[in-house]
Amino acid sequence: MAQDLKTPTLEDLIPGGETFRSAENLYGLQWWGNQCVKPDIESVALINPATGKEQIITTLEKVNKTLESNELPLIHSFYSVRFPWEGKSEMLIPVPGKYVVYNWKTNQVVSTLDYPKEAANRDYNTASGHVAYTIDNNLYVDDKQVTNEPEGIVCGQSVHRSEFGIRNGTFWSPKGNKLAFYRMDESMVTEYPLVDVTARIAETNNIRYPMAGMTSHEVTVGIYNPNTGETVYLNAGDPKDRYFTNISWSPNEEKIYLIEINRDQNHAKLCEYSASTGDLERILFEENHDKYVEPQTPIEFLPWNDNQFIYQSQKDGYNHLYLYNIDGTLIRQLTQGDWLVQSVLGYNPKTKEVIISSTEISPLQSNLYRVNTVTGKRTAIGNSEGVHRASLSASGEYVIDNYATPTQPRNIDIVRIKDNKAQRLLTAENPYKEFKMPTIQTGTIKAADGVTDLYYRLITPADMDSTQQHPAIVYVYGGPHAQMVTNGFMNGARGWDLYMANKGYVMLSVDNRGSSNRGLEFENATFRQLGIIEGEDQVKGAEFLQSLPYVDGNRIGAHGWSFGGHMTTALLLRYPEIYKVGVAGGPVIDWKYYEVMYGERYMDTPESNPEGYETTNLNNLAGNLKGRLLMIHDDHDDTCVPQHALSFMKACVDARTYPDLFLYPGHKHNVIGRDRVHLHQTITRYFEDHL
Amino acid sequence: MAQDLKTPTLEDLIPGGETFRSAENLYGLQWWGNQCVKPDIESVALINPATGKEQIITTLEKVNKTLESNELPLIHSFYSVRFPWEGKSEMLIPVPGKYVVYNWKTNQVVSTLDYPKEAANRDYNTASGHVAYTIDNNLYVDDKQVTNEPEGIVCGQSVHRSEFGIRNGTFWSPKGNKLAFYRMDESMVTEYPLVDVTARIAETNNIRYPMAGMTSHEVTVGIYNPNTGETVYLNAGDPKDRYFTNISWSPNEEKIYLIEINRDQNHAKLCEYSASTGDLERILFEENHDKYVEPQTPIEFLPWNDNQFIYQSQKDGYNHLYLYNIDGTLIRQLTQGDWLVQSVLGYNPKTKEVIISSTEISPLQSNLYRVNTVTGKRTAIGNSEGVHRASLSASGEYVIDNYATPTQPRNIDIVRIKDNKAQRLLTAENPYKEFKMPTIQTGTIKAADGVTDLYYRLITPADMDSTQQHPAIVYVYGGPHAQMVTNGFMNGARGWDLYMANKGYVMLSVDNRGSSNRGLEFENATFRQLGIIEGEDQVKGAEFLQSLPYVDGNRIGAHGWSFGGHMTTALLLRYPEIYKVGVAGGPVIDWKYYEVMYGERYMDTPESNPEGYETTNLNNLAGNLKGRLLMIHDDHDDTCVPQHALSFMKACVDARTYPDLFLYPGHKHNVIGRDRVHLHQTITRYFEDHL
Repeated sequence: MAQDLKTPTLEDLIPGGETFRSAENLYGLQWWGNQCVKPDIESVALINPATGKEQIITTLEKVNKTLESNELPLIHSFYSVRFPWEGKSEMLIPVPGKYVVYNWKTNQVVSTLDYPKEAANRDYNTASGHVAYTIDNNLYVDDKQVTNEPEGIVCGQSVHRSEFGIRNGTFWSPKGNKLAFYRMDESMVTEYPLVDVTARIAETNNIRYPMAGMTSHEVTVGIYNPNTGETVYLNAGDPKDRYFTNISWSPNEEKIYLIEINRDQNHAKLCEYSASTGDLERILFEENHDKYVEPQTPIEFLPWNDNQFIYQSQKDGYNHLYLYNIDGTLIRQLTQGDWLVQSVLGYNPKTKEVIISSTEISPLQSNLYRVNTVTGKRTAIGNSEGVHRASLSASGEYVIDNYATPTQPRNIDIVRIKDNKAQRLLTAENPYKEFKMPTIQTGTIKAADGVTDLYYRLITPADMDSTQQHPAIVYVYGGPHAQMVTNGFMNGARGWDLYMANKGYVMLSVDNRGSSNRGLEFENATFRQLGIIEGEDQVKGAEFLQSLPYVDGNRIGAHGWSFGGHMTTALLLRYPEIYKVGVAGGPVIDWKYYEVMYGERYMDTPESNPEGYETTNLNNLAGNLKGRLLMIHDDHDDTCVPQHALSFMKACVDARTYPDLFLYPGHKHNVIGRDRVHLHQTITRYFEDHL
Repeated sequence: MAQDLKTPTLEDLIPGGETFRSAENLYGLQWWGNQCVKPDIESVALINPATGKEQIITTLEKVNKTLESNELPLIHSFYSVRFPWEGKSEMLIPVPGKYVVYNWKTNQVVSTLDYPKEAANRDYNTASGHVAYTIDNNLYVDDKQVTNEPEGIVCGQSVHRSEFGIRNGTFWSPKGNKLAFYRMDESMVTEYPLVDVTARIAETNNIRYPMAGMTSHEVTVGIYNPNTGETVYLNAGDPKDRYFTNISWSPNEEKIYLIEINRDQNHAKLCEYSASTGDLERILFEENHDKYVEPQTPIEFLPWNDNQFIYQSQKDGYNHLYLYNIDGTLIRQLTQGDWLVQSVLGYNPKTKEVIISSTEISPLQSNLYRVNTVTGKRTAIGNSEGVHRASLSASGEYVIDNYATPTQPRNIDIVRIKDNKAQRLLTAENPYKEFKMPTIQTGTIKAADGVTDLYYRLITPADMDSTQQHPAIVYVYGGPHAQMVTNGFMNGARGWDLYMANKGYVMLSVDNRGSSNRGLEFENATFRQLGIIEGEDQVKGAEFLQSLPYVDGNRIGAHGWSFGGHMTTALLLRYPEIYKVGVAGGPVIDWKYYEVMYGERYMDTPESNPEGYETTNLNNLAGNLKGRLLMIHDDHDDTCVPQHALSFMKACVDARTYPDLFLYPGHKHNVIGRDRVHLHQTITRYFEDHL
């Protein structure tokens, strides 16, 4: 049977491939109040969430005709159109250089708002109609320049290298009357030179990259009032190189809340500042941990009570919700258990419920619940399978539930929360249904501590002759904030793993201790010794492979990127008798070359943890290299700078060992786009050459 | 028999290896007038050139005792001691920070001259006792600072990237009363960033690297008078970006001679300047060529006639000597024939002879002759074998003749020129006599033009089974100014070639058109199309290999460095059906990334020769890669900048072809020292993996 099917190529399997196959989707699905908006190319429809009935509200032809008569740029589809104004038949159309507010009933342009072509980090506030953006390193609002800083000081952009859940640098107040923004002085941070070889004469693109233990940038928070044109900076005081994270506003726009963390990252404070004076008014509460604290979510006020907010914390060992009074006193812990809350989707003010996703059913899953903020009662939303990503309607009564299971790439339902009644919007076909695909199974093995369960995913060739022994490759990440094995489609298997299994390799991934969705202790077991325990756990995976009759235990390889590149290198150096061939992409080699925020959280500084840095510095193990190791780095990698791979080459030359190397010019911390197929051909060839 | 011998390792064969074996030598042999000085560790002796008798003149013990009592640093041997003062029993002892003049008869320190520890490019004048040196970018003489230029202007150092025979930046007048020096303004030259990954945070070492067709540096020549402390610069006028080469002095120290060349390098002028005013006084004569002129030797005045000088030129097709009058009129051509003069060793004023080395016997050789400047009569000195390097005594009556033949690594004779009577100082043993060594033969094949003879060297395994087919590797350079095949020891074979032959590979080198010692037309056949004709000639070598019954014609590889790296890459891309595996080191990939001086001589500029640059740009051929190509580059390569290899990687990624790459951190335009063994193990492994 399998022989009748096509064998997928890397072009079919790798994102960026010319024939890459991804599961069908409905792009731009969103809420207009409690009605679901379904954009398409030629038209846009509203879906009644209770009945699933669609009604086209306007067409591309109509809209473009109006845009044209207003001498505005035309649009090519409705996918990027937004519907932020419940009750108003107006949509927000972004066109180059302008936001257009458009009434789909009258077919008229209501208003337009211009911004310069070079504007980046645009943040349009749908309540007030103001737009914040940056040009180079300065912040602008509407047509006013807010900051005027020299090179080296960056305003209105994400700071702290986007750790602590930080994703952007502007934060509109609830009604859009004020804008909080980050200002980061990195002029004191040493520049790292990335060389651009595509220039006529190669030139450097310097990045300010604070390395562990070195002088870091200093962040402050400004508040700009578009009505007065005035800016006030928070009086946060010393020390300046601490972390200002998780900005949020009080509902009345008078207070700013920050979770401030010391540089050692073991002490967090929830601080309240006056948005008008910038003065610190209160420290609501503090959180300490021997290892580290890592708040990643701003507090959220209950929509029905301006005096209560929800705070997320791992303080009991798992990320859970805590309801606090505005004076900083705990009202109650809302969720509890040896599972964790992954996200808060929103609220239903009528039922006083908060809607969340969590791992309650399985660490491999993400499922939806409503939690009563008074009683703590949890009720499941949608089904108990797979990985759900959802979007809540304005009233909190409906979700758009986009989920996958190991066998189903995507279903999209509109679910009525109160009774779980679902309207199916999409049942996506398996994009590989005409192809020969390997067999995927998951299970658990014991970690090196003999106690902890680790989840694995094992992929075996579809037509495997189990009487023959096959080479095996471990695809590994192993670091915090990531999980390789899920109950999503194909259990999270990547295209390359499937490709190699089709070529006859047995592919294994194991989420070792230190990885995500298993709680704080599982993650922080690796503190100050990154890679050591993780590697011991991976060895358990290799022993599992060696126990399989169809695996050739002498032909085990490893591949991973970033933290996984570190792991791959570490496995070949620490366990050369097990791992014979590795391909390490964009690896961390020596944590002292990694950045301050992430690096010091897990490793402290080279000064305070010298043994940890020595033990985990793979340059010190370069002489152990016995197998074949290909190290791949991107020459514009601004996350793991090329110094990692190149210092390892030098260490190996000094130690007279023989790694292989490849560099992808012009790429950052991974090879993306069309070249990603080339990358995976390079990786494949290396295992075919040597394993 | 061969089986009883040891097989040499890379450590034995590669310079830098822990057990590298080089032929015995007598270090520091030199002339003190007409007596030969033979330094040793514990003592230093004089040798009577007529009898060969040695007489120890002093010992380390004696000298160090005196140095110690003068509170001077001690010496560890006599190898770096010099004997410049004929008739005076004084020697020059360089110790850190000082020149010591020492009388070996009285055992006294005659004088000392201090220089700062950071002094570089030291040029001690033995006639006057002045020393010139540089600190950073400025020139000093004795304890005076001569120039005071900002960064970007370099004084007293070699200029024009050491092309045109330039090797240093200071030129003492014959009696040491004046100093000519180069001043190079390179502040307008774009900097190329070389990244040092051994710093705590990687940093750039920028070099001023003028690329073909781009803005180049501007050179002037200054003349400093240590007696007056005054400096005058030559009034050379515009255009400023021409070449000021081959500086020499008139015997009376009043004139400076330069050979000035236009940027297009097809027009040379012999110019006379006043050393006191800096004014151009005369252009003695000019030389043009459709392709290029390349004078590499300053004029030399006859020691017995201040009005006549010798000028070297390739104008009749081979480098020959011309005797000129000081007014610029040609007296006579001194040498002629389809062979070339390689160097002028000096003169015998009594016999009015000039002593030269030349290729008259064979292009593979270098032999010594005396040429009568009146009659032109040439008489051979020493034997007619091999490659001779010699040093002439003060009177021109004796030479120290250091030579090698294919079977003899080194002989050192003192030869009395008038009757060729020789005193043997050293017969070096074959450093590999206890080792299994392959068989070496040389011969000629026809070039791709069907007419020109090309010399090859073929190395076959000692114990080769001629009934079996062997893989073959071509070691190639192919560019101007170099020759791989000689009649020196083992015909110039390198250690790696011998190593690979011992492993069963047949090793071939062919000196294609464009290489040295064959005359101008042979060299300049490649003009504006570097690599094309050279490759066609190399294919003839591959066809020769394929004609050999013991060579597997489907397993031919290529390896080379620099121009040879270009050739290796070009062969794999242009002739993928012949060359299956290549290792290209420090290659030129695109001549527009190469420097102005060398690049424009052979290629003109990208603007004036766009087709040539397009045709020879290997990035344009990246899609042709079918075989296995390992490209190796040094990350501090300031000759072929890393942009060559890295742009090729990008071109291959774009073209979806798959080269391999390795970088040696911290090395320049080759891997030297201990790491050179690592390099050759890497190269070896690649051919073993893939050929």
